[in-house]
Amino acid sequence: MSDVYVVGADLIKFGRYPDRTPAQLGAEATLLALDDAGLNIGDVGALYAASTFNAASMIAQQILFQIGQTGIPCVNVSNACAAGATAFREAFIAVKSGLYDVVVAVGAEKNPAGMLSAGNSEGPPPEGLFGSGTMPALFAEAGVIHSAKYGTTMEQFAKVSVKNHHHSTMNPKAMYQKETPLDEVMASEMIAWPLTKLMCSVNVDGAAATVLVSARKAKELGLGRAVRVRGSALASDPWESRNGVLMNTNSVTRLAVATAYEMAGVGPEDLNLVELHDCFATAELLHYENLGLCGEGEAGALIDSGDTALGGRIPVNVSGGLLSKGHPIGATGVANIVEIVMHLRGEAGARQVAGARLGLAHVLGFGVGVGAAGVHILEKA
Amino acid sequence: MSDVYVVGADLIKFGRYPDRTPAQLGAEATLLALDDAGLNIGDVGALYAASTFNAASMIAQQILFQIGQTGIPCVNVSNACAAGATAFREAFIAVKSGLYDVVVAVGAEKNPAGMLSAGNSEGPPPEGLFGSGTMPALFAEAGVIHSAKYGTTMEQFAKVSVKNHHHSTMNPKAMYQKETPLDEVMASEMIAWPLTKLMCSVNVDGAAATVLVSARKAKELGLGRAVRVRGSALASDPWESRNGVLMNTNSVTRLAVATAYEMAGVGPEDLNLVELHDCFATAELLHYENLGLCGEGEAGALIDSGDTALGGRIPVNVSGGLLSKGHPIGATGVANIVEIVMHLRGEAGARQVAGARLGLAHVLGFGVGVGAAGVHILEKA
Repeated sequence: MSDVYVVGADLIKFGRYPDRTPAQLGAEATLLALDDAGLNIGDVGALYAASTFNAASMIAQQILFQIGQTGIPCVNVSNACAAGATAFREAFIAVKSGLYDVVVAVGAEKNPAGMLSAGNSEGPPPEGLFGSGTMPALFAEAGVIHSAKYGTTMEQFAKVSVKNHHHSTMNPKAMYQKETPLDEVMASEMIAWPLTKLMCSVNVDGAAATVLVSARKAKELGLGRAVRVRGSALASDPWESRNGVLMNTNSVTRLAVATAYEMAGVGPEDLNLVELHDCFATAELLHYENLGLCGEGEAGALIDSGDTALGGRIPVNVSGGLLSKGHPIGATGVANIVEIVMHLRGEAGARQVAGARLGLAHVLGFGVGVGAAGVHILEKA
Repeated sequence: MSDVYVVGADLIKFGRYPDRTPAQLGAEATLLALDDAGLNIGDVGALYAASTFNAASMIAQQILFQIGQTGIPCVNVSNACAAGATAFREAFIAVKSGLYDVVVAVGAEKNPAGMLSAGNSEGPPPEGLFGSGTMPALFAEAGVIHSAKYGTTMEQFAKVSVKNHHHSTMNPKAMYQKETPLDEVMASEMIAWPLTKLMCSVNVDGAAATVLVSARKAKELGLGRAVRVRGSALASDPWESRNGVLMNTNSVTRLAVATAYEMAGVGPEDLNLVELHDCFATAELLHYENLGLCGEGEAGALIDSGDTALGGRIPVNVSGGLLSKGHPIGATGVANIVEIVMHLRGEAGARQVAGARLGLAHVLGFGVGVGAAGVHILEKA
């Protein structure tokens, strides 16, 4: 039996840590996750660290240095905003291979100032990194195309931000815990139509960690709080194109999610909650359709219905999402998985999705004209 | 049966490629390795790319973009000079897990000018990256300590460079194919005693790739030219120390090699050839002892004996090594494995180690006070 379980999961409060290194943040998250699992670093067979901007500094080893060096294999993973899901997936594969019983996947990041989210960052976005468009412009364009095709309104995009900021008022580890009413979201500084400042994700420092174990080890620890990895998929762009964000977004996420659903033997109708990559408010609506939560062109109606809010049919980003919890690039993918684990255990406090048994975590990463999407489907053991 | 085989292996000529991107170099090596395996990119289930300085730009996806995008999982790995071995090992684990039948591990790098090898680079080494010492200084110190302890002479260190430069005259893909007599090595510019310029590795651009397959796929392709991965180990520093290069070198390499020997069920006496991390001439002698090729303090006598030269008992770095073939950081670990594969197949031309059946590839990577060592043991199938 080669099932893999998550037995430890935690994150630090996302925010600004000018006086701490990325490795120190990663070490804190790792210790929290190990403590959550009732294990210590001496039990860990290998450590995978995601850090898009700090992988080259051997952040995995630096994290281990903070905690206590044991000589275990350390792997440093970079994959733009999909790095966290990539590191988690490599840890999953390492356990599945039979080489290790206990593996840690941690994401830790301090982002370069001005990176990605123009709206909330301190400086101009590094346009050169992204070719013809900045991230806000690319995701704005995707919204414009959706709007032209299906009549999606700016108000519908803005409602994503209202919802996710509301969710984050129940998440003490989110960067912000503050309601943002619709008129406030609509009236905030225009970054790239239809995206206002409050519809862009928050550029923060952060770290999140998970402990993955073999079936044998999970039984030894007791399956009570364990969560099973039912589906794990990573995809790159599936065709020769630099066709812009909408088509790339569609293709790479759809490929990953189709693979994950097939591996898990489930469909979107089976999910109880979703954490998806709401780097911008437009992205969340596009991903409703990419993930199969609604039909083509129905994302506007889905946000209007309230079904994706806490208490609805399929709550999305109850953590507050990248929009309000924050988006520490390499850590985001691990944090999305941590949120799902908390709900499947029934330990999500005020924002608990009642009776959650199956959840999906998604991230999307872009480089210059290429991308990555990671999808994990987790189930209460 | 979860054995993993290498069925394709090749590299581009190491050198300077001012007009090409790292991804273009990586794509060329990948196509060479696929061609060698009789496979094409459509057969590949996942792609692992090592590039210490280019992982953040999603080089794996950029390589796939050059060749033809298929949507497969792309993982970008960074681990200082051990990145290549790390990516190969992740590919090995991915095949071993049963998730994929065919996986590519590629290393591709264009190094920042002045990186690592002060002697042969265009600018000053970035001392800030390495704390108190530059790489030449750290490895010089290791030589000085060895010398003080065991009486190892500067001439013995220099002989490593003479040997490896001689080997590279038989390797058309090495950066240099030029004999360097002992007096020339000894008389070249002093970088950090006992290391002269010709005893420092060559800072080059390069790429190398391997194709790993499952036992099932290897049988389908025919085992004639296949090479089996018998041992695969990655280690980080095993104790809480920032004790400097000698102790770290010893500890991290010794931990990795002990793990690899145990996994393979062999010892150093069973090896027919070794490619080890001769980033500096001093390092090769230290690694003779670290890898168990001789006893403690006997490395000087071993190089004097000629046993580690082509035709000797246990040839080391018959490719020319990092000293003369060149050291494109993230690609080096894959290139060392490619060299072993060529010999086990009997396809190494003028530098063929006669009757080679078992070989070992080693790399060592350093960050600020932390490190990684990767060791792979390969066998003729």
